[in-house]
Amino acid sequence: MNSVTLRSPLDMHVHLRQDAMLDLVAPLTAASFAGAVIMPNLLPPVNSVERLQWYTQEVRRATAAFSFAPYMTLFFRDYSEQELMAAREHMIGIKLYPAGATTNSEHGVQQIDAMGHVFAMMEEMDIPLLVHGETHGFVMDREAEFTRVYRHLATAYPRLRIVMEHITTADAVALLDQYENLFATVTVHHLYITLDDVVGGLMRPHLFCKPIAKRPEDKEALLRVCLDAHPKVMFGSDSAPHPVSMKESPGCAAGVFTAPIALPLLAQLFSTHSSLDKLQAFVSDNAQRIYRITPPSTEVVVEKVPMTIPDAYDEVIPMWAGSKLEWSITKPAHQ
Amino acid sequence: MNSVTLRSPLDMHVHLRQDAMLDLVAPLTAASFAGAVIMPNLLPPVNSVERLQWYTQEVRRATAAFSFAPYMTLFFRDYSEQELMAAREHMIGIKLYPAGATTNSEHGVQQIDAMGHVFAMMEEMDIPLLVHGETHGFVMDREAEFTRVYRHLATAYPRLRIVMEHITTADAVALLDQYENLFATVTVHHLYITLDDVVGGLMRPHLFCKPIAKRPEDKEALLRVCLDAHPKVMFGSDSAPHPVSMKESPGCAAGVFTAPIALPLLAQLFSTHSSLDKLQAFVSDNAQRIYRITPPSTEVVVEKVPMTIPDAYDEVIPMWAGSKLEWSITKPAHQ
Repeated sequence: MNSVTLRSPLDMHVHLRQDAMLDLVAPLTAASFAGAVIMPNLLPPVNSVERLQWYTQEVRRATAAFSFAPYMTLFFRDYSEQELMAAREHMIGIKLYPAGATTNSEHGVQQIDAMGHVFAMMEEMDIPLLVHGETHGFVMDREAEFTRVYRHLATAYPRLRIVMEHITTADAVALLDQYENLFATVTVHHLYITLDDVVGGLMRPHLFCKPIAKRPEDKEALLRVCLDAHPKVMFGSDSAPHPVSMKESPGCAAGVFTAPIALPLLAQLFSTHSSLDKLQAFVSDNAQRIYRITPPSTEVVVEKVPMTIPDAYDEVIPMWAGSKLEWSITKPAHQ
Repeated sequence: MNSVTLRSPLDMHVHLRQDAMLDLVAPLTAASFAGAVIMPNLLPPVNSVERLQWYTQEVRRATAAFSFAPYMTLFFRDYSEQELMAAREHMIGIKLYPAGATTNSEHGVQQIDAMGHVFAMMEEMDIPLLVHGETHGFVMDREAEFTRVYRHLATAYPRLRIVMEHITTADAVALLDQYENLFATVTVHHLYITLDDVVGGLMRPHLFCKPIAKRPEDKEALLRVCLDAHPKVMFGSDSAPHPVSMKESPGCAAGVFTAPIALPLLAQLFSTHSSLDKLQAFVSDNAQRIYRITPPSTEVVVEKVPMTIPDAYDEVIPMWAGSKLEWSITKPAHQ
């Protein structure tokens, strides 16, 4: 197969930022995807109904040229029942970041227990919990250490749908078949790169992200479940734009920008592994079933037609800028 | 103790480069150290008697204001007996880089065996072999994989003095007490940082080096032998300057620049661990005994007097530029 038509492809984890950056990157996402789960880590975070409504409008405005569904998220905090009731219809889930909650795995569980009433309400209201699952331990161990927290949450709140976001390790993959209520998103860059690509040759700031790319055997475990479109795994790019000045600097910000090239990268990868027939499930069907959503009906055609990845999108450098891809989008979502 | 007088401190592994960079960094090394082992990885490499003599003159010229001993090295290749005889008096050892020689540990040993006649001659002539001990495997495993090569060399050439350069792992530390003819240099940055410091928070290009900083338990193993001044361990900074344009870029070059702050960093570290009495052995006595050298007689005084690490030395950014150190050099080598 040298072509694939994707029906309503979805990016279940993306950073669209705000202001000028939003205006730059949101249309790039909407050109490839029928909908996306929008992360709430703005400054200040999206942690109230008012902020949520404001940000929804901002994203809608920036993607007005497209029939694009922004699936909004709240930034996790100690919400009241009234707040959750009011926010519920405006969002798809609540995103939990480990900062403050999980300095170490042991300590993290205790702190997370202090939020038990919120998890219980979310479980009752059927609001998914989206988790950045890293402790504050050694960088290569953070996700593996956090699996203790995932186990705890999955057991304590068995009807709470928990999405392990941007998983990078065989340890996290192993949880999928152990707990019915654990799901996962996987990025495209973690299917291509390991720590070797980040710091094994020259150091590559544009491949630096959190969680950091891990070991070859971790990448293999991710590939196994994604290429097979494991029913609990969804595509989430974690595309995270930063201005070039924040990347090529003495303190490089974490984030890989892949939004406009994610589908060609995926098509190339799935094609190489003779799994192109699984791509529809990975980039849309699984997410629709897990999140119980019906995104706008669109079609994106990706073909084995070479492209060169742009050197930059304005001030944002994409992954593998300037290099060749074998596949490209020949018919975007809405034109 | 709030002061330490170091007699003829030595840096047993340093990159002085050539041309303008040599003129910039060589005096900074000579202000701290009575002598240093100068790496031969220029372009083209220092791999002939002629190149060796030329480079020796260059280093002497750049350090003429100091009574400084440059201990020169040859870049390993298939030398003839005549070449080794001619080079012998002009150098302290031959530096082996893994490129081409050791793609993987298994393959590497075979290729290294093809150089057996050179090792045998070096053993016979009592020329030390200095080794960058990394395979081309996964970045966190390269040094541990290379220990197989060290074991092979140490066993096959029992009278050849082999220096494991800039070791970073508990695996390499463990070899020291297993093979009489294995020695090691350790940098100062690998005593301070782990991979966490490089990519655990923001990404830090000025802490990016090869071998990459490893795990906390590796750092602990290094600290143990250095703070104890294990008799087979020597200080070698691996100070490796690059212009800032090569560091803060999409492809950051490997190398941490520490030459002018190495002794204050070491004094601070040894003082913190109540091991200041061991610093003399680590930065000079061990090296004099292992290499059988008598460096120029100098004294460097390092005191608990705060300093701020300069933001830059011309176009070179040092480790932890702009931050505070508790210790500083109050009397340099030669003024």
